Amino acid sequence: MIELHPEKKMPLYEQLYNALAQDIRSGALQPGKALPGRRTMAAQLGISTNTVDTAYQMLAAEGLAVTRPRSGFFVQETGGMLHTRPQHSVVPAPKATPKNTVSNQDDILYDLSTGSIDTSLFPARSWGRIQKELMYQRPELLQRGDMQGDENLRAQIAAYLGEYRGVDCTADQVVVGAGVEYLLGCLAHLFAGSTAAVENPGYSRTRAVLENNGIPCVPVEIDESGLPIRALEQSGANLCYVTPSHHFPTGVTMPAPRRAQLLAWAAAKPGRFILEDDYDSEFRFATRPLPSLQGMSGANGPVVYLTTFSKSLAPGMRIACMVLPQGLLERYQSDFSMYANTVSRYEQQTLCEFMANGYFARHIARMRLTYKRRMEAFAAALHAGLDPDLTLAGAHSGLHFLLTLPGAGGEQAMVQAAAKQGVRLKGLSEYYMQDAAHCRPDTVVAGYSGLQAEDIPAAAAALSRAWRQMSHSII
Amino acid sequence: MIELHPEKKMPLYEQLYNALAQDIRSGALQPGKALPGRRTMAAQLGISTNTVDTAYQMLAAEGLAVTRPRSGFFVQETGGMLHTRPQHSVVPAPKATPKNTVSNQDDILYDLSTGSIDTSLFPARSWGRIQKELMYQRPELLQRGDMQGDENLRAQIAAYLGEYRGVDCTADQVVVGAGVEYLLGCLAHLFAGSTAAVENPGYSRTRAVLENNGIPCVPVEIDESGLPIRALEQSGANLCYVTPSHHFPTGVTMPAPRRAQLLAWAAAKPGRFILEDDYDSEFRFATRPLPSLQGMSGANGPVVYLTTFSKSLAPGMRIACMVLPQGLLERYQSDFSMYANTVSRYEQQTLCEFMANGYFARHIARMRLTYKRRMEAFAAALHAGLDPDLTLAGAHSGLHFLLTLPGAGGEQAMVQAAAKQGVRLKGLSEYYMQDAAHCRPDTVVAGYSGLQAEDIPAAAAALSRAWRQMSHSII
Repeated sequence: MIELHPEKKMPLYEQLYNALAQDIRSGALQPGKALPGRRTMAAQLGISTNTVDTAYQMLAAEGLAVTRPRSGFFVQETGGMLHTRPQHSVVPAPKATPKNTVSNQDDILYDLSTGSIDTSLFPARSWGRIQKELMYQRPELLQRGDMQGDENLRAQIAAYLGEYRGVDCTADQVVVGAGVEYLLGCLAHLFAGSTAAVENPGYSRTRAVLENNGIPCVPVEIDESGLPIRALEQSGANLCYVTPSHHFPTGVTMPAPRRAQLLAWAAAKPGRFILEDDYDSEFRFATRPLPSLQGMSGANGPVVYLTTFSKSLAPGMRIACMVLPQGLLERYQSDFSMYANTVSRYEQQTLCEFMANGYFARHIARMRLTYKRRMEAFAAALHAGLDPDLTLAGAHSGLHFLLTLPGAGGEQAMVQAAAKQGVRLKGLSEYYMQDAAHCRPDTVVAGYSGLQAEDIPAAAAALSRAWRQMSHSII
Repeated sequence: MIELHPEKKMPLYEQLYNALAQDIRSGALQPGKALPGRRTMAAQLGISTNTVDTAYQMLAAEGLAVTRPRSGFFVQETGGMLHTRPQHSVVPAPKATPKNTVSNQDDILYDLSTGSIDTSLFPARSWGRIQKELMYQRPELLQRGDMQGDENLRAQIAAYLGEYRGVDCTADQVVVGAGVEYLLGCLAHLFAGSTAAVENPGYSRTRAVLENNGIPCVPVEIDESGLPIRALEQSGANLCYVTPSHHFPTGVTMPAPRRAQLLAWAAAKPGRFILEDDYDSEFRFATRPLPSLQGMSGANGPVVYLTTFSKSLAPGMRIACMVLPQGLLERYQSDFSMYANTVSRYEQQTLCEFMANGYFARHIARMRLTYKRRMEAFAAALHAGLDPDLTLAGAHSGLHFLLTLPGAGGEQAMVQAAAKQGVRLKGLSEYYMQDAAHCRPDTVVAGYSGLQAEDIPAAAAALSRAWRQMSHSII
């Protein structure tokens, strides 16, 4: 029996989350069991459905629960080798590259594609001031720097990743580079002759970079816990690229048991490695994310940790980093000894001061709060316009969510109808590299990080108009 | 008969250069013929040996004459398939990577390694001001930009390369990237399955990058006109990496006939390409350099033009670019469509404004003048201390020269003796990737771009002390 205490300082949704999480972890709530419907739970506890929804989304973000369209939330299967796949209706596989049907950019009023940021949140004055001071006062930064990146920046990054992401590393192991694509290219050299399993759906960019660099990729279909180990084993790959904190684009969090299995897979044979892309872990809104896989496996485990500052600073600044285990580090240092680092030293040092003086932590905290409010406002506006059919998933982490709306004519129709109302977004099946047969139907991916706060009601209203009409005309 | 006119505005060395260049081009001075000794020529014309030396160095920089240690200057062979190699005495091949014998960095007073710049010449105020304005006024630069680089920057670069280097291209063909290494990595993908001929001696960095990316390299020994075509043909390579404007590190300029042969080599079979690295063509002190090979071959010829802003701006800022012919461009755009550009958009746009508003041209002109004076002062100080045995080569282009001093115990002894006097420089044989049997003996590579003007007399004096003593103790 769950008891909530409105008089306590802890918000009700967090109390509910804690109670449910404890029951799931203790086994009182069994794997696969349906959680009570939001309305039922809300009525039982005398709280709002929004509060219940938030707690459920937090469970999903933690990998403790999964959401299934039209069915609600279920306790996560414990990630055993046997897992049940949600019973999706089968949608036809999309064409190779389904094009966005919007041809004229001018028609786009609201861009919900992923990968933008709200530039008004960037602390341009602080950044510009630090950069200008460095330009005037530190002419030695004009000279070539350390091939792995400036040491003081690497030390800041190592400390930050250790504190916030449980990454187990020293500054020596950190390599700074001009974007994850560049670093993946370096890794492809270190892993020459390997085959990589990549998540399907997933980042087609990763696949393109690895294959451009001679690493064949096998897309492996994810389930509700992320990349399934049996399929990974069957793929024959010795490399595994994963986004365990927040699977792109579905938002699935890989739960701890699956993580342990993944590490066991890597440990089972020499030469197996995991590439962990922790691309937007800063944006976890309710709880701290699980620590990184890298941290679970230790400083010299078979995990390369990758992350980018594209979301936490700006995609227009090209700064990313990776953490190499010792054995790989030695090969990297030997094979790349002739290379200059790819990031301007002024931007490296600006970021270093930004981190050392607390600007970065404050900036992240401010962005997290702003994006959280925006997500909540957008979700609420969408629910108001499209309930009871709408399901949101993956909202409590990252900067996009999945939006499932049965009865609106299917994914393609949803994308096209949205475009007619001036909203750009992509169907979930577009993120599949092959075989979208198990793609969750009626689902689109909506990024809100490029959306201005004041545009939220209008963007939600445009989507409601787009899809309400269709669902009315179809039903 | 050469006549000089001291009353004319044109400097005497330039008049002498023009007269000799005309005689060489007309055939009045035949290929292979020795030019009169500097003292003889100076006495004949009633001018200083310095003036003669300058004119001779200019001829060498233009590829019209070659210098041979202890023998003086000779009219360039016309670059036919048959060429004579200067009769060097054979020096033993160096070990794989001869280490600089200086272990303690603190002992270094004067660093004559190549690749540094004089940071005091950098217009930090203008650059910093532009960058700060952009940071405050153009938040859209925080977002992801064009994969090839921002279009307005590419247009500036195309115009600049067209005007100053005779490069025949539009902005569409320009690709901006974070350093030549990065761009070479992209090219390695486009040329997968190729074998590359690289200059020996030459940039071991280029070889490392190409081989890291799966392109085997065959070092081809250069002669006094640069890369010989017969050896290139014999190498079996279909790619050819060259530094025709100013061979690294010898300073040899590839003369026009050899260039024509090189282009004919590329045209002879489909799939042959030339990678032209024009790494420091801004620093030609007396005359304009020959236009680029790319310009000779035309916008869609078999030449990829590469250059860097490491010398013209700063090595700490990672900006380089390449110009692709149309066929390669299409493959590049298709294979790299998922990639973000590797250069920060703020640095791209700062450079763009810097170029558009004339800062860049003025900066280059100022650096050229400063470095020229520095080179002249350094050369004069070295001559004063070490004549008559000293020969300098490659002084009139680029930011380093070769310094040959017979009787000082050979290259290794010269490097070690210099180090004892606090001067860091490398022996020429260290730039050989294999088979340094034909390495010019008694020769070191001296970069002066990182040397402060006020340190020149002392650095030259240190070298004189180092090598005079040895030559006295040995002879």
